[in-house]
Amino acid sequence: MSMLEQGRVADVPYEAEASSRAGTLPVVFADFKPVTLRPPVPQDELLDCLAHWMAVARCVSQGIESEEQKTAVFKSTKKRIERYCASSAEHISQRQVCIYDTANTRRNGHLEFLAPPAPYTNIYDNPAGKTWDKRRVLFEQAALTAFERCYEESEQPDEIIHVTCTGYTSPSPAQVFLSKQGWFQTGVTHAYHMGCYGAFPAIRTACGLLAASYAASPTPKERVDIIHTEYLTLHVDFLAHDPGNYVMNALFGDGFIKYSAYPLLNFLASNKRGLKLLAIQERLVPNSLDEMTLKPGLYSFDEMVSKNVPDIIYVHIKEFMTDLCHQASIDFDAEKQDLVYAIHPGGPAIVSKVREALGLDESKMWVSRDILDQHGNMASATAPHMWQKIVETDAIPTGAKIVSVGFGPGLTVIGAVFEKI
Amino acid sequence: MSMLEQGRVADVPYEAEASSRAGTLPVVFADFKPVTLRPPVPQDELLDCLAHWMAVARCVSQGIESEEQKTAVFKSTKKRIERYCASSAEHISQRQVCIYDTANTRRNGHLEFLAPPAPYTNIYDNPAGKTWDKRRVLFEQAALTAFERCYEESEQPDEIIHVTCTGYTSPSPAQVFLSKQGWFQTGVTHAYHMGCYGAFPAIRTACGLLAASYAASPTPKERVDIIHTEYLTLHVDFLAHDPGNYVMNALFGDGFIKYSAYPLLNFLASNKRGLKLLAIQERLVPNSLDEMTLKPGLYSFDEMVSKNVPDIIYVHIKEFMTDLCHQASIDFDAEKQDLVYAIHPGGPAIVSKVREALGLDESKMWVSRDILDQHGNMASATAPHMWQKIVETDAIPTGAKIVSVGFGPGLTVIGAVFEKI
Repeated sequence: MSMLEQGRVADVPYEAEASSRAGTLPVVFADFKPVTLRPPVPQDELLDCLAHWMAVARCVSQGIESEEQKTAVFKSTKKRIERYCASSAEHISQRQVCIYDTANTRRNGHLEFLAPPAPYTNIYDNPAGKTWDKRRVLFEQAALTAFERCYEESEQPDEIIHVTCTGYTSPSPAQVFLSKQGWFQTGVTHAYHMGCYGAFPAIRTACGLLAASYAASPTPKERVDIIHTEYLTLHVDFLAHDPGNYVMNALFGDGFIKYSAYPLLNFLASNKRGLKLLAIQERLVPNSLDEMTLKPGLYSFDEMVSKNVPDIIYVHIKEFMTDLCHQASIDFDAEKQDLVYAIHPGGPAIVSKVREALGLDESKMWVSRDILDQHGNMASATAPHMWQKIVETDAIPTGAKIVSVGFGPGLTVIGAVFEKI
Repeated sequence: MSMLEQGRVADVPYEAEASSRAGTLPVVFADFKPVTLRPPVPQDELLDCLAHWMAVARCVSQGIESEEQKTAVFKSTKKRIERYCASSAEHISQRQVCIYDTANTRRNGHLEFLAPPAPYTNIYDNPAGKTWDKRRVLFEQAALTAFERCYEESEQPDEIIHVTCTGYTSPSPAQVFLSKQGWFQTGVTHAYHMGCYGAFPAIRTACGLLAASYAASPTPKERVDIIHTEYLTLHVDFLAHDPGNYVMNALFGDGFIKYSAYPLLNFLASNKRGLKLLAIQERLVPNSLDEMTLKPGLYSFDEMVSKNVPDIIYVHIKEFMTDLCHQASIDFDAEKQDLVYAIHPGGPAIVSKVREALGLDESKMWVSRDILDQHGNMASATAPHMWQKIVETDAIPTGAKIVSVGFGPGLTVIGAVFEKI
């Protein structure tokens, strides 16, 4: 029994506090397992799909029936895609877009549009698509499938943290999965509605679940799993013709990934590679509440990102990064060339602005660029895909320090420092 | 630097593990501060309101215009209220129901119905009420006001955990409040969509945030605040005429409450009363996924609770309670008469079934009965109201052990053991 347990004490000596801190446990994140529910589709093909269905939705909503007028709408939609989304093809090669039945979309190498995207029962009758209560069912199915796939080769964890900003239902996919699996003793924590930065509060919570269990429980927890189910394309809006909607329709990809948090002590025996968390820090940017929002609406969750966001991040990121690194005893200015970067690629401009503000070479941004290129922006699932890349890249040695930063509504800037072990 | 930090080790001696566990910190919950946005209204008056507006909605939706038919609908609605809700008045004296403008509802002691309930712009045109995207705005306003009121006499915390199952928006009310307050360095964690048991994962997360911060941060966290904003009556359905909907319309009250988690070490110097967490345990009940659901719908979050729930809890609660108490080194059968009980009063029958299954006198259920009586079921905000009652009741001495249990979709049963200090 420690001295803290012995009752009320007026003056607690420094030693007691020091010992209460030294004992808590470092945590390692490892065993990243992404799953795909649909094969990724090349971005140019996705832009063709987008042009097609946005044009269909527009014609139906405006009651356009003549072939001539239809052709004009298809042409003008294509033009807007070229204007607002063309540059995306420079930064994104492919995305997983689960709303398309890809088998029906592509036949003999040609695009065909036999099956309307999943958020529609019949786009020709209802160009706004299914209301959210109907789309939610699609989320439930996809998320449960993702859980099942994630656990194909995995044992029961002590805890599951389910992360998403794209669908909520109760019992949650985590609970449905656990119940069907017969894993009745696993605790569930929901880390919901935090947008693109959701992985960071999730790892903070995972560390906490492990650390606190060592204080309170006769059987400390050995593994906390984090599962992201981000079905972003379910929230596609084919009707809105503002530039922002075009940009987002071309940017988001669906992402499903599981990984595990272990106490360092247990992990070391495994001889695996992972990321040991050294520090985590969250800040709100003043006067920026309206710059990014994510609000559940009638048809979908309405996301708005103002075009100021990259510039706002540019102004604040250097100080944020310096403070974050300081918490891990890293002098950012002195050591910045030695760090590995995993900056959330909310879009290509955000990565560029961060690079510029921190005074780094473009080559330092390769992890962000690579994940954006291969997946698009998968919201909260993006960061763990970057972390996986770092763990599995042999050229990044053990001992390397990694700084990872995410952004979201608030504006919230949140980051972590890891050491590769 | 502990031995864990020195690199990979093949065999970790038992001493290292023991020391990594002894040092972590116990956590105390205290400073419970509920706020009311509307004065509570007597239950019999609320049942009259319910009868009135359900009858109005029914008349409008069925196109009933003759005075004779209207009178018949009002009478039959009143009868159903008496049938399905009358017993609620034995168990509930009053509730906070924020959808009613109480100043307009009651004039000179008489009920008047001048202003329709908040989920309606005009119930006479649209008996289904506002769709969720519109109701969400009411949630945002109420939740932000609750945050402001909770912090009227409070300093900045290190972390905020926002708990709700009745509204999601981003930036969240926690983030909007912090930004307006200029408290940019407080971290935010969302504990969302867990129904009535949400307080338990929230306190588990709070312990974790404190415990983990002592491991990773040069400035350990001293206070984590938990704020519940449960605007349940926003999700009222005046149209559905199944018995379950009547029961729920008469059961739920709105609840807003804040409390704080402190490391025991810091708390002891304050000479205040609080609850030290000894153990927490979560279990899924097999084959019960469909017995309770909470699904965001078109107009509101659709809640369904089957009438089997009290009986299912009856079957499982004894084993659950025995295991939970064992984790806190309590022999439940031997000590059950000495424990203080804070069982979530999901409804009167659940409390009775728990009492019966555990073999306890009705007097042991007084905390649950009292909170239900004074507030109705406030979902996740209910448990912290019970905890406040225990902390502030002088007749419960320090050293008393408290067992608190909540229930939710899954079915999830989750409980905690506290010691009053």
